[in-house]
Order: sequence, then structure tokens, then C-alpha cells
Amino acid sequence: MNYVKPSAIRELLRLGADPEIISFGGGYPDASLFPLEQLNEVYQRAITEKGRDSLQYTVSNGTPRLREQIARRMNLDGIDCNADNVLVLQGGQQGLDLVSKMVVDRGDIIITESPTFLGALIAFNPYEPRYIDVEMDDDGMKMDDLERVLEQNPEAKLLYTVPDFQNPSGVTMSLERRKRLIELANEYDLIVLEDSPYRELRFSGEPVPPLKSMDTEGRVIFLGSFSKILAPGLRLGWAVASHELIQQLGLLKLAADTQCSTLNMSAVSLYLDTYDIDAHIASIRTAYRTKKDLMLETIRREFPASIRFTEPSGGMFTWLTFPEGFDAGAFMRQKAVPEGKVAYVPGAPFFPVNQRANHARVSYSTQSDAGIVKGIETLARLLKAAI
Amino acid sequence: MNYVKPSAIRELLRLGADPEIISFGGGYPDASLFPLEQLNEVYQRAITEKGRDSLQYTVSNGTPRLREQIARRMNLDGIDCNADNVLVLQGGQQGLDLVSKMVVDRGDIIITESPTFLGALIAFNPYEPRYIDVEMDDDGMKMDDLERVLEQNPEAKLLYTVPDFQNPSGVTMSLERRKRLIELANEYDLIVLEDSPYRELRFSGEPVPPLKSMDTEGRVIFLGSFSKILAPGLRLGWAVASHELIQQLGLLKLAADTQCSTLNMSAVSLYLDTYDIDAHIASIRTAYRTKKDLMLETIRREFPASIRFTEPSGGMFTWLTFPEGFDAGAFMRQKAVPEGKVAYVPGAPFFPVNQRANHARVSYSTQSDAGIVKGIETLARLLKAAI
Repeated sequence: MNYVKPSAIRELLRLGADPEIISFGGGYPDASLFPLEQLNEVYQRAITEKGRDSLQYTVSNGTPRLREQIARRMNLDGIDCNADNVLVLQGGQQGLDLVSKMVVDRGDIIITESPTFLGALIAFNPYEPRYIDVEMDDDGMKMDDLERVLEQNPEAKLLYTVPDFQNPSGVTMSLERRKRLIELANEYDLIVLEDSPYRELRFSGEPVPPLKSMDTEGRVIFLGSFSKILAPGLRLGWAVASHELIQQLGLLKLAADTQCSTLNMSAVSLYLDTYDIDAHIASIRTAYRTKKDLMLETIRREFPASIRFTEPSGGMFTWLTFPEGFDAGAFMRQKAVPEGKVAYVPGAPFFPVNQRANHARVSYSTQSDAGIVKGIETLARLLKAAI
Repeated sequence: MNYVKPSAIRELLRLGADPEIISFGGGYPDASLFPLEQLNEVYQRAITEKGRDSLQYTVSNGTPRLREQIARRMNLDGIDCNADNVLVLQGGQQGLDLVSKMVVDRGDIIITESPTFLGALIAFNPYEPRYIDVEMDDDGMKMDDLERVLEQNPEAKLLYTVPDFQNPSGVTMSLERRKRLIELANEYDLIVLEDSPYRELRFSGEPVPPLKSMDTEGRVIFLGSFSKILAPGLRLGWAVASHELIQQLGLLKLAADTQCSTLNMSAVSLYLDTYDIDAHIASIRTAYRTKKDLMLETIRREFPASIRFTEPSGGMFTWLTFPEGFDAGAFMRQKAVPEGKVAYVPGAPFFPVNQRANHARVSYSTQSDAGIVKGIETLARLLKAAI
């Protein structure tokens, strides 16, 4: 392919880096939650105790120990797998690239949620797919709409979903819909790409089983990540799939970048062996739940009633729906940033087909409590004047 | 694309991991040369002094500081560039993937040396190019043969070369040929991919200027790597190219895996700020030169005269040419490994077009002095009986 679309993400990163701006834009984790002391300890051990291995090449699918540790964690989440079903990736993002490289030829159909994760569209675009999107509500992708799409497009190859606390909407797919999705995937011979980097950041209620745990035909590829539960600067994520698909993806991984950083894999293995990551995740969950509660409470109190918002039970995002005709992108450029010094992500780029201007993704993950209140109050004031 | 070729590299890695086997197979650096103490120090600083940045997301093209440091090193090598001309990559291998993703559509011609780097073919294959290879001699790619290829295939898009101490042949392209290559690239509007991970491992003589330093039209993409001069487990390499090409490649990098590990980039920046990497590289060069001298001396003394070998002035490899009709792959499987417990890389997979069986790549980089002598003596004994 020859042409690449400039990325909307870059503009957001630029705004996020301006210290004058209260940014609800980035999907960054809160850096104050990184376990620095423990990571320092395991990097020292990885280098001083076994540096000749930790700094050398290793097998391209990932170190056997880390794949085994990931498989065990997946088992606890109801997914039947072992180390041979795991491919260690350069973050979940690499899974989006490699799966589309494996599955998609130019013009092939990818089915997504509407809206869907912008980073996935950026990964898929170079393979020049055709997108068809499926409506969502508070229970996730609507199965009657998916069924209609599949009846009209039975040749579709890949279905992409973020079922837990979706980026951008914060919505989680219900158990009933997950079951139906698997039935339809079996009927229409779809590969299902289940992208779930926020899954472990649940604030309340019971986890809904992953699609992969219901997959009896080896057609679901699960993507997970250490970015949101440990640190994104390590660039470590993983895919879990059938042995056959992992072999294919592993060869594409070898072709794309040989392997992930041996040192980072070794250090994370030592971390998992030495420390209680679930206790660490519990502390992250508490921190984000507090921020989420504060943001939603402030929105509820301050925003005009005509603006709807989702109530995430985990993750980092709420999704705003403004009245029809409202342009969230223009409002941000003309009012929110210059007058209020507040930024969010306008919703339009998250729609792969018909972009709707009256949405915004708002993240509570990195702002202080004071920043959340001030930013939402400021937005509310400007919105009241505009709507 | 749907199909991936199983990789010859995997079989080699398996043999390399068997402690009974003296392996001249892998292109691994010698792990005893890794600067463990210094790396331990810079990782500690990266985590304890600025862990909230080092473990967070950063800009997808790579941290500004590391790009600046790389640009300065490239300046010293005669390449006119600044940080905006640099893209930090997940090892040089990722450059092979992203450049072919940018340039190559199915059926497009890639021109390579004959033989060429196997990892490059593995990276290019998913984009389904057509290969045309160009003969080499002791001065590298033959320009009269390249001219013939271009006359016959003026639509060729990409020329791939490893001009310094080539993997697999150990050969370096002469200055005169480099100048002619640039003339031909300008005449035929080629993108030139200059892959030079071994460039700084020169044993003797003066460096030949990089192709990129002679590029007046922004058509050369230079790939470098920290894998051979620091440690491959960090997975850090770089591309240097025109600002326009770096922007395109940067968007593909964002799509493929968001960014390289922030922590690894931060630690390498601190290493470059704190320590003298050129002194470190000088010590690596001395170690490899000693191993190379010992191996070539032993080959000269022990091998049948009918076997030719290249005399590398840097890097990690010599390339054997056996008499016509000799099958280096069969000999390794039937004699060298089972009887002699010695492995190398049979040469056939390094040829993108007509695979020739009577070659082998032999690496001296990881074996002890005793291993080099014993392995070569054993091979010589078995070869004398077979040829």
C-alpha cells in the first residue's frame, strides 16, 4: 500500500502535552500508579542475575516462562489454553496489525462496533478493508443489527470487538449478547478479534466471561495487555488463540520485528513471580473507580440534561452524546480549548463508516480530583452557553 | 495475505540451543560482551529518577532525545540529518517490514543481492513481491548486472542491500559501486533500503561511506541497530530517511505497535549520555576480529582447497562456497550434525530466486576460541571424507 491517513491521535497527544490544558483526551494510565520500586528491583535482577539471557535474542513467540504465566492468568479467567496458545506482542496494538495482516485482503469486510477503537482503524487501514459497523446500546453490540449485517454480507471475514469497558464508549457487552455473537460467528465462519485491554479494571459487579472462553471452534483471538495493569512503556501485550492461528501469527511476528524485548519479558516474568499483581490491580481499580465516580457525579450535577453519558463499570472512559446537530470537534477547537483550556476526544473519528459529530470520549484516568472537577465544571459552563 | 512460509530460522535456533552442538549458525552477538554493569545503572536511573515518564507512552516516532542522539551519530558517519529524519524501530527488522509495507504492492519487484539476508525475505514475503537478484563478488553487488536488471525491469520499485559485511556473505560494497548504485537509483527512480546493522563492527581499513551519505534525492532509507553494538534484547534500531518518508513510516509504526518501549529508549539515552559507546564498540570489534582471525586461519589450514571462503573486514560471518554439486544442507543434516556435532546455516534459503545448494554461512561471533578450532577441524575432517 502507498498511502497512510494522518492520525487524529497525534493532535490529541499534542494537546495532552500542554500543561495549561486539562486534558480528558489521552487513554493513558495514571503514571503515579506504576509500581516503580518493584519494577526497579526486577530489572536489576533481570540484568545482574541473568543479563546474558535477558539481553540476548530469544524465541520470537515470547519467552516460554512469560507465555506460561500469561496462559495461567487466562485460565483463571475461564480460557482453556497453555503457553503454546500465547503469542507475546508489542502491546495489544501489534495484535491488531498482525491479525489484519493475516486475515484481510484489500476490500475484505471487517465488522466493528459503532463507535470503535480508533487505534484499531489505524492498524486495519493499511490493509484497505471495507468496514461495516454495528449499532451499540448499553449492553454492547446489538445482535439483531449484527445478524442483519451478516445476512447482507455473509462473506465478511473478521469481526472486531472491545467487549469490556469499550474504548471509546465505556460500554460492556452482556453475557447473552456474547453467546449470540459466538453462535453467529460459527454460523458465518467469522474470525473474532476480542480486544480487551481494560478487562481487569472492573469497578463493580461480576466479570462477564470473555468471548474466547465460549469459543469451541478456535475462531476467537483474544488480545490482552500489560499496558493498563502494569505500564505501557514496557510495550507488552499478548494474543491467545488456537495453536494453528498462533503459529501463523508467530511467523508474522518474526517477520515484523523478530520478537519483543527479552529484557522487558524477563523483568515482567520476575515481577509476576515475586509480587502480587492482583493486589496491584486492585489498587489501580480503586483509584480509577474513585475518579470515575467523581467525574460522573460532577457531570450529573453540572451538565445540561440534554447531554447523555455512559456509566462505565470499569476502564477509563465515558462517552458523551450531545444533541443532534452539535459538533463536538468544532466546539472543542473554538470554545473548550481556547476559552476553557479543556480537551477531550471528539467522537467522529471513532466511527468507521458514518462519522457522527455529536459525541466525545472523555477519560478520567490521568486527571487529579481537582482537575476532574474544574475541567467538567468549565465544560459545563461553556456547554450551557452553547446548547 | 493468508499464507506464511515456515521459517528456516526456527530450525537453526533449535540447533543453536542444543549444548552438545558447536553452532556456527546464529547471527547472535556474544553475550559476554554486553555491558551489564552500565545497563543496570541506567535502568535503575530510568526507573527511579524518571519512571513516570520512562514507563508511560511517548511519541510514536521515538523519544526526542534518543532520535537526536542517533542523528548525531549518523552525522559523524557522513549522513546529513536531524532528529526529524530518525524513526526509532523495534530492531532493524521492523524497518524491513514497514518499508515494504509502504512501498510494495503484490507483484512489485524488489531487487536484492544474491545471496541476501534471510530475515529481509521473511519480512518482505507477506507483501508478495517478485524478487530479482543481482550477482555479487568480493566488492559487493555487481553494477553491470544491476544495470542489466534495471534495463529489463525499469518498473522495479525497491532495491535492498546490506552494503557492510553483508549477512550472509561478509562482503562489503566498494565505494565505486556505491556511487554507481546511487546513479542508477536516481536514473530508475528506485527507493534504496540500506540495511547496515554490522557497520560499526569494522576490523580493519577505513569505513566506506554509507549510501545514504551520497543520496541527494531523498531516496535512500538507512537502517541501523543497537542489537550488535549494545544488546539485541533491547529491540532498538532506527531508520534515517527524508522527512517525508519518515512521516509515512512513522504512521505505519503507530499503526503497527504504537511505539518502541519507552523504558528501553530512556535507558539507552542515559547510556549514551553517560558512557563512551565508541570505546565499548572498539572492545567488541577487537573480540570479533580475534575470533574471525582464528576461524579463517583454521579454515585456511584445515579445509580442502576446493572450498572457497570470504574474508570479512568486519561483522560476524564468512561465506563458504563448496564445489558445484555439493549439497551443504544435506551434508549438515547427514554428517556435520549427527557425526560431528557441528552446525552452520546452509546457504540455499539466502537466495531469493535460484537457490544454490553449495554454500554455507558460518558465524564466529558466539563460539569460544576452543569451539572455533574444534568445530572447524571437525568440519574439515568430515568434508575431506565427503569431497
